[in-house]
Amino acid sequence: MPTASTRVPQQERSRATQARLLEATVECLIEHGWSGTTTTVVAARAGVSRGAQLHHYPTKAALVTAAVAHLAERRADELRTEAEALPAGPQRLDRVVDLLAMAFTGPLFVAALELWVAARTDRELRNALVPLEATVGREMHRLTVALLGVDERRPGVREAVQATLDLLRGLGVANLLSDDSARRAALLTTWKRQLATLLTP
Amino acid sequence: MPTASTRVPQQERSRATQARLLEATVECLIEHGWSGTTTTVVAARAGVSRGAQLHHYPTKAALVTAAVAHLAERRADELRTEAEALPAGPQRLDRVVDLLAMAFTGPLFVAALELWVAARTDRELRNALVPLEATVGREMHRLTVALLGVDERRPGVREAVQATLDLLRGLGVANLLSDDSARRAALLTTWKRQLATLLTP
Repeated sequence: MPTASTRVPQQERSRATQARLLEATVECLIEHGWSGTTTTVVAARAGVSRGAQLHHYPTKAALVTAAVAHLAERRADELRTEAEALPAGPQRLDRVVDLLAMAFTGPLFVAALELWVAARTDRELRNALVPLEATVGREMHRLTVALLGVDERRPGVREAVQATLDLLRGLGVANLLSDDSARRAALLTTWKRQLATLLTP
Repeated sequence: MPTASTRVPQQERSRATQARLLEATVECLIEHGWSGTTTTVVAARAGVSRGAQLHHYPTKAALVTAAVAHLAERRADELRTEAEALPAGPQRLDRVVDLLAMAFTGPLFVAALELWVAARTDRELRNALVPLEATVGREMHRLTVALLGVDERRPGVREAVQATLDLLRGLGVANLLSDDSARRAALLTTWKRQLATLLTP
């Protein structure tokens, strides 16, 4: 029977191995897309033996689903950290929209998009992803409301936040194959003014 | 040397073969996604010999790029046909937004999204797709301006049309894995009112 002192390092090692595998999965998705992401490539990239990889995540769907949860947490953490530096006052809304736009055009969005598109035609991945994405979507909405410091019980606020996130998702896709930043910046300048009006009591 | 009478049917047959291959490619993308779309599967689905397929489109990238152009034309044609039945007057804007929302959640959008995502990590496809998508994007913008019957030289009109298309693209992605129609309808009700204000001189 393992003692408490041997059990704890073992759990820590397991967690560290899992974290390395999930990071490597996200990197693989960004670099090679869904079809180029195989469990073998991920294990090699993470420096984890094939046996250990199979022990923690027996299938590609299991590995990738765990990576999505990890990815969503990383996206939310990044946003929260960056948001700490934001000013209060009237400039805040503009900066929050800029932060969100960065999140929706960054590598973590790209990795998530690879999975959404793959899940459309992959039942196992889809079954794992759909409930998770519902949670992630709600969390992103809540985080945006908190960053903007608005009260969702006021009429129109909920819809304005939703439209902002849907617009940013569309802009993220528009940025996939070529640099759309100039057009996006101009469009968001207009959107920020509209949003300020929609959110002002 | 072929006479004019033998040449014409031959050209017609070639065009018919090409059209069948392109339709089969689009259907394959919708049903099986990018990774499940192979030139062999497409040729079989189209009822075209492997030799004829290779004659018209020697690579997957060539086949798929031609299918994108075909796809874009089909999307624009569908919109134009449906737009003919639209009323003039104040209801028109709402109906145009509904038509566009259908286009961005329909099978042809899904096929295009498969290609955009695949092209991110596939240089050959990307090189073929980027110039084509620029044209398609401009055409979609022009068509929306025409359907709405607005004057783009007025300040704010161009940005409002762009924001509508980017929002609809985001809503299309949100609809990929589950039916988002109830949320989308509510959000678009609000958006139509905003758009009417932005477009009214």
